[in-house]
Amino acid sequence: MGFASRAATAGLLALAIAGGAQARADQDALKPVLNAGDKTLNFDWPMIRVGTGEYTEGPTGVTVFTFGRKVLGAVDVRGGGPGTVNADYLRLGYNYPELDAVVFAGGSWYGLEAATAVETALKDDGVRDGDAFTEEPNIALTVGSIIYDFGPRRLNEIYPDKRLAQAAYRAARPGVFPQGAEGAGRFAKTGGMFGCNAYSGQGGAYRQIGDIKVAAFTVVNALGVVTDRQGRVVSCYSGASWPKLGTLRSADLMQAFPDSYKEAWAGPEGQASRKNTTISLIVVNQKMDPAELQRLAAQVHTSMARALQPFATMADGDVLYAVSTAEYDGSAKMNSPSLGVAASEVMWDAILNSQPVQPVAPKIDAKAMPKAGVLAGLAGDYVFSSRVTVKVLAEGGKLTAQATGAQDAYAIGRKAAVELQPVSANVFTVPGRYPLTLDFSTPGRLVFNPGHWRQVGVRR
Amino acid sequence: MGFASRAATAGLLALAIAGGAQARADQDALKPVLNAGDKTLNFDWPMIRVGTGEYTEGPTGVTVFTFGRKVLGAVDVRGGGPGTVNADYLRLGYNYPELDAVVFAGGSWYGLEAATAVETALKDDGVRDGDAFTEEPNIALTVGSIIYDFGPRRLNEIYPDKRLAQAAYRAARPGVFPQGAEGAGRFAKTGGMFGCNAYSGQGGAYRQIGDIKVAAFTVVNALGVVTDRQGRVVSCYSGASWPKLGTLRSADLMQAFPDSYKEAWAGPEGQASRKNTTISLIVVNQKMDPAELQRLAAQVHTSMARALQPFATMADGDVLYAVSTAEYDGSAKMNSPSLGVAASEVMWDAILNSQPVQPVAPKIDAKAMPKAGVLAGLAGDYVFSSRVTVKVLAEGGKLTAQATGAQDAYAIGRKAAVELQPVSANVFTVPGRYPLTLDFSTPGRLVFNPGHWRQVGVRR
Amino acid sequence: MGFASRAATAGLLALAIAGGAQARADQDALKPVLNAGDKTLNFDWPMIRVGTGEYTEGPTGVTVFTFGRKVLGAVDVRGGGPGTVNADYLRLGYNYPELDAVVFAGGSWYGLEAATAVETALKDDGVRDGDAFTEEPNIALTVGSIIYDFGPRRLNEIYPDKRLAQAAYRAARPGVFPQGAEGAGRFAKTGGMFGCNAYSGQGGAYRQIGDIKVAAFTVVNALGVVTDRQGRVVSCYSGASWPKLGTLRSADLMQAFPDSYKEAWAGPEGQASRKNTTISLIVVNQKMDPAELQRLAAQVHTSMARALQPFATMADGDVLYAVSTAEYDGSAKMNSPSLGVAASEVMWDAILNSQPVQPVAPKIDAKAMPKAGVLAGLAGDYVFSSRVTVKVLAEGGKLTAQATGAQDAYAIGRKAAVELQPVSANVFTVPGRYPLTLDFSTPGRLVFNPGHWRQVGVRR
Amino acid sequence: MGFASRAATAGLLALAIAGGAQARADQDALKPVLNAGDKTLNFDWPMIRVGTGEYTEGPTGVTVFTFGRKVLGAVDVRGGGPGTVNADYLRLGYNYPELDAVVFAGGSWYGLEAATAVETALKDDGVRDGDAFTEEPNIALTVGSIIYDFGPRRLNEIYPDKRLAQAAYRAARPGVFPQGAEGAGRFAKTGGMFGCNAYSGQGGAYRQIGDIKVAAFTVVNALGVVTDRQGRVVSCYSGASWPKLGTLRSADLMQAFPDSYKEAWAGPEGQASRKNTTISLIVVNQKMDPAELQRLAAQVHTSMARALQPFATMADGDVLYAVSTAEYDGSAKMNSPSLGVAASEVMWDAILNSQPVQPVAPKIDAKAMPKAGVLAGLAGDYVFSSRVTVKVLAEGGKLTAQATGAQDAYAIGRKAAVELQPVSANVFTVPGRYPLTLDFSTPGRLVFNPGHWRQVGVRR
Repeated sequence: MGFASRAATAGLLALAIAGGAQARADQDALKPVLNAGDKTLNFDWPMIRVGTGEYTEGPTGVTVFTFGRKVLGAVDVRGGGPGTVNADYLRLGYNYPELDAVVFAGGSWYGLEAATAVETALKDDGVRDGDAFTEEPNIALTVGSIIYDFGPRRLNEIYPDKRLAQAAYRAARPGVFPQGAEGAGRFAKTGGMFGCNAYSGQGGAYRQIGDIKVAAFTVVNALGVVTDRQGRVVSCYSGASWPKLGTLRSADLMQAFPDSYKEAWAGPEGQASRKNTTISLIVVNQKMDPAELQRLAAQVHTSMARALQPFATMADGDVLYAVSTAEYDGSAKMNSPSLGVAASEVMWDAILNSQPVQPVAPKIDAKAMPKAGVLAGLAGDYVFSSRVTVKVLAEGGKLTAQATGAQDAYAIGRKAAVELQPVSANVFTVPGRYPLTLDFSTPGRLVFNPGHWRQVGVRR
Repeated sequence: MGFASRAATAGLLALAIAGGAQARADQDALKPVLNAGDKTLNFDWPMIRVGTGEYTEGPTGVTVFTFGRKVLGAVDVRGGGPGTVNADYLRLGYNYPELDAVVFAGGSWYGLEAATAVETALKDDGVRDGDAFTEEPNIALTVGSIIYDFGPRRLNEIYPDKRLAQAAYRAARPGVFPQGAEGAGRFAKTGGMFGCNAYSGQGGAYRQIGDIKVAAFTVVNALGVVTDRQGRVVSCYSGASWPKLGTLRSADLMQAFPDSYKEAWAGPEGQASRKNTTISLIVVNQKMDPAELQRLAAQVHTSMARALQPFATMADGDVLYAVSTAEYDGSAKMNSPSLGVAASEVMWDAILNSQPVQPVAPKIDAKAMPKAGVLAGLAGDYVFSSRVTVKVLAEGGKLTAQATGAQDAYAIGRKAAVELQPVSANVFTVPGRYPLTLDFSTPGRLVFNPGHWRQVGVRR
Repeated sequence: MGFASRAATAGLLALAIAGGAQARADQDALKPVLNAGDKTLNFDWPMIRVGTGEYTEGPTGVTVFTFGRKVLGAVDVRGGGPGTVNADYLRLGYNYPELDAVVFAGGSWYGLEAATAVETALKDDGVRDGDAFTEEPNIALTVGSIIYDFGPRRLNEIYPDKRLAQAAYRAARPGVFPQGAEGAGRFAKTGGMFGCNAYSGQGGAYRQIGDIKVAAFTVVNALGVVTDRQGRVVSCYSGASWPKLGTLRSADLMQAFPDSYKEAWAGPEGQASRKNTTISLIVVNQKMDPAELQRLAAQVHTSMARALQPFATMADGDVLYAVSTAEYDGSAKMNSPSLGVAASEVMWDAILNSQPVQPVAPKIDAKAMPKAGVLAGLAGDYVFSSRVTVKVLAEGGKLTAQATGAQDAYAIGRKAAVELQPVSANVFTVPGRYPLTLDFSTPGRLVFNPGHWRQVGVRR
Repeated sequence: MGFASRAATAGLLALAIAGGAQARADQDALKPVLNAGDKTLNFDWPMIRVGTGEYTEGPTGVTVFTFGRKVLGAVDVRGGGPGTVNADYLRLGYNYPELDAVVFAGGSWYGLEAATAVETALKDDGVRDGDAFTEEPNIALTVGSIIYDFGPRRLNEIYPDKRLAQAAYRAARPGVFPQGAEGAGRFAKTGGMFGCNAYSGQGGAYRQIGDIKVAAFTVVNALGVVTDRQGRVVSCYSGASWPKLGTLRSADLMQAFPDSYKEAWAGPEGQASRKNTTISLIVVNQKMDPAELQRLAAQVHTSMARALQPFATMADGDVLYAVSTAEYDGSAKMNSPSLGVAASEVMWDAILNSQPVQPVAPKIDAKAMPKAGVLAGLAGDYVFSSRVTVKVLAEGGKLTAQATGAQDAYAIGRKAAVELQPVSANVFTVPGRYPLTLDFSTPGRLVFNPGHWRQVGVRR
């Protein structure tokens, strides 16, 4: 579409706004799910409170960190597509605690509403006010960043909004952090660079060295692949000719580039996301001055290139926040490089902890193919959102599907119909690099990938 | 209050949240007033659409700029207390149009909710979606900044919120910009450095030079004094010994420092704000590349030090956004310094256009003093907000007032009661550097400064 | 010339290097002139030592500031064409004194050799060594910036080199600063934006307010015009139709743009420089932390837009260094905005102090025209440098001149010969906006503009 | 030494300058060694010319890169102790080729003289002039950075100066890059974080992928350890209890921190450097705009955290320059993340190529112990520089040594004399973590570590 034609005419704009009313209504009807997830990191540092909120219908979510009082913060922005709130203030390097909360969210730039919402929640709840004139100013300062978690990974564009973020803030718990595909990492992915397209999430880790405490939290939505300390790729739907997971090494993928890259994108279902971001928080209890904390942020953020390969690309929006709670100011304080080494390892652990169990492809069972009459009952137009509709046809004893909206539905593309293979009576699949399940077992619904990342379409 | 004691205990936090419920309710009941103000700048550039929203009860507000399509943006952050959304993205210097909207708001950092709200409004209304995969990504990018407009200038802490900002965005009109104390500049002030404490607002200006269009918009809430091209202070409640306005020169105030400063803060009613910010937008129709646009931003922002003295202090949060609409790419394009000179003058005009007529002090009329019985009827505790209550006492034929909450009410301090002087039957004043009117003419209410900047208290 | 043709072939490069040998020889034969100039600022702060060095043959020079011990430094880069050494280190914001010297020089980027030369002089002289392992590291840290002072203002390209800078460093004196066209400001100019083309220089100012000391130093080579506190242009060769100096106002020039600009560049002798830079140093004795000092730098640098109009353009390379000597840490310390106001006024004074008396045009005296025989004796090719030769012809009782090298010689262009008008027996001129004197009184020499800014050509 | 006492008095300063005269004389007598080293990278890209210069007496050196024409450059500064020239200009992001040369040097901040020297060499040689007024400005722009290579690794403080850098520039050869401990990497070290204290150097690598060329060059002087793609430490004098090299893994050292760190620094000869820096250059032939090139710089620089662990610490001054020669602008251009992956691998290769063969400890041979008379002939005060003298004593049939100047001489400390163990008739050693050889075979001289990194002392 040309530049000129993009300028919305008044008429189109009016239509758009009418459509928007529906979008708002959909968003408003969503029910926040708070602090979900069983795989929690429980850490002995109650000063750090964590609350998560999710809209299962996305799914997408938000993660809120507060500290019970103002703390010193720093920020390191490295990626090529960041979203930030108030990063400029942190950069001024004032040497007194001012930061109240760090907010991570899905929803790309729309999710920044979550960061400002925690700021206003602190005001609305009376924790902070607008008093800038007493010796210790009491205005809330919140920072935040976001990840891209829209299409092609999701069939809708629900985003974490003010309501969800404020609920998450108010539900914050001390010393408990849900790991995996929860909170802001609810629909994170990794490895798009090589077509891995693995499910990802948020991870945390905590370590105490004598008097020094270090906690790391990260939402891993990297273009790169998650890599362990043996150099192995942790999560990936591998290319057909690749070594299987466990022996697949990040360094090999990187060195084989651009060959490794070509296979990644060659298939018809090349649906791996090319918009990514890893957003991170490192917290230390050691008192540091702003310049030292900034150096710590740079060192730890840089070290993440070991665990995420590649890292800090133009297609990532990587941001790391660093916080010093200044609880400890004794003789066992570590110098900046040393603390940085320790913190970098805690961050690597956090990255590894972010990885969920990857769904596996359903097995085709040719004998399970339903009869024509049953197939006919499954046909119809299934609407997933204003952007995605899947037309299912039953003809000649076969079931086919084709996307008809603005966006493909995974391997179900818009260009041509795809034949569905039976798995069981009501369940079908499309073979390919990535597992894909189409579940018709609920009448009038088509559910893609039942389970944690399910997408639900309703027959029109 | 000491550092340790600031850590909110669970009990206090619970109380705070209970109080917050009330705060939220108050905020939710406010009614947006859109595009208010008669003193508009009408300019021949319909591509620039402006919407303002205000909560009269603050008063405070928001101003939204959109362009009908994506444009190239740059940002220059200079002040010591900025609030920003997405400034980091603009700094990357990508050479394609990406920016959708610029949002200015009152409410200090809480007002940043307005910036993210316009982003989500663009999504909710279907103008933008989350599609990052077509050749021209369609995700909305909104930037924004805020001014400090809380106490001591206001007796409440209402802030521009999501609801107000989205209403203002949807009410945007082409080529019309309300000037003076409207929109984000609804309760701006200037000259706190020298105790001037003048009312301020937002201003705009537009100039066309051949094919080149330049528009400037600014919300002037500077610590410094507004200065005209003859070097004269434009708005100020002058110190007692100073030359009167019209002959008072900024250069003299600056040179007389710190003497000029001392008088400024000496009086018992030294209520001028020491938290400030001027936020600005310069728009050109000439196609520029990111580095050139950044240079234009720096030159224009720097030039504002002529019109605002001092400027870019640690107590200002000055931010300027620059936009190139790239409508014109012909042979009459100006080089960067030349365009900068022209744009700087348009910005100076915009600053001058921001200044409202200053209220004058009511005249004391000793004969208007009501009788004791009438006075007794005025006594009571008038509640302005959770932070400000004014106790009015009638004793010995005199009316006195004292603030009893967390914050002074202008010259009505918390330390001692102040005697009120009669102006008319129901109206009183307290003499001093700044005009102050107390109007009891509506039963059960005490209205400070009836008119555009009024503050209403309700008798408990 | 096309891009490809710019790639130097081996042959051309060899020629270039051969020419370079001559260039080096010329540069090596120059004699440093140290601490020249009678118009000194003498200030009561012996900790600040200043040394200047000049090559009269340029003329060009260098100014070195040292502090007798390490101090805290900050830097604010605002212009579009800066030259810097070690600015990155200052930006890290470490809170301990590390800076040894600030060096300003002419010679555009080549003059940066002066900054590194002072660093190595501190090493060679044993003031600093390479010891990074004792508690207080002893490595020298020097920062520096440069101004553009080459053609068209000069007819040669001599630059301040290592030898000159080290001599200036070693000649540094406490509390004495030469003002006007000395040191790094030896051939500075201002007002090119409007064709003013005024001679400029370096200025200093000092003020003590109670216990607080502030010193400001600046080398004013701005594209903009120097402006006094009444808004008047201080130095300018005015356009023909303009108000005369004293009534010419910067605001008027700025507002009349682009008309004022057009006249500036219309004449055939439009030789005003379009490459500029103002480099400045502000020193305070008050102890400040790095963030406060950075804010002071921003405020003072921004304030200079009043005295230099325009300022911080793409054609300026403006850099300001700020230093806190931390000698005073008592109760009279000023807050950052207040100190910034005071320092900004000291800087304005420094700018005004930089301006030398402007040479005036010689008067044509038609009767002074020498006879043909005498004229013939003046003819010849006068070589000013490898870039500039002026061919003088005596024909028909007239003397004409034409530039034949790579560069014009002021109003003596390369396109056509210009007739010279007699002033006295051996002295001629070319009328125009800018004064131009051609002095043949020394046999075999042509001296342009005898005096402080003279350029000497030798007949071949 | 206290703060006040550091202020040099006039008397001390005079002494210092007198000492400096000697220092200068020493520096001036050094003879440049150009393009030394047999282990060259020969690459098929003649546009890139490389010259190195070394002072063997340091040893220390400089490496100069030129491109035959102006190219587009970008810079990424990440370390906590950088030295930079003209990085600010590169940051402005102008979209035209301006950069002439990149210079790397030893000598800490003093070595920045090398960067400015290449700038003036380009001027002196006539390759560039000061002409800023033609369409394509011809002023030379050089950038550069330095590494710390002084004590404790060296016993003198010779630095790469103007003379050496200009000689190296003039000796530049197309397509040849000396690897190992040559040029700016002449006395680089790595692994100080863990006490590895390995000799390091400079490395290069080159790869062509279809039409795309990538060259990487780096001077590896990292606090971290060089790590190969299997995660193994490449160079290290290991701690006593550690796995031997080949099985020693960086991840294990990092995870074992702070235990691994403690051993590192526990020994009496803990002489590993705690001041470090890795400076790098990535060159691509693909045309990129400034923002894309900046993203490439960030991605590649970040990726180096895999090969150098830790990286970008407060004790490193890491800087990476990126250059696009824009020779290729065809359809095979790679997107930024893809090119970044390829370039990151080339850079990893360059890092691995930087590592020289590590000297091994000489073997003690008790039978080689000379007789008392011979030992007596070895005694004396051996002067290595103004900072280091080693007193050798022969008593009771033993040879002992003690440092008497401002700095230790490796395991020969200043606190107590150390007994020397015989290796052969004229050669001795001190056992410990790091190899140390004392060679008396040249009469009147004591040579530490004969060979590439030798240090020579002359008996007084």
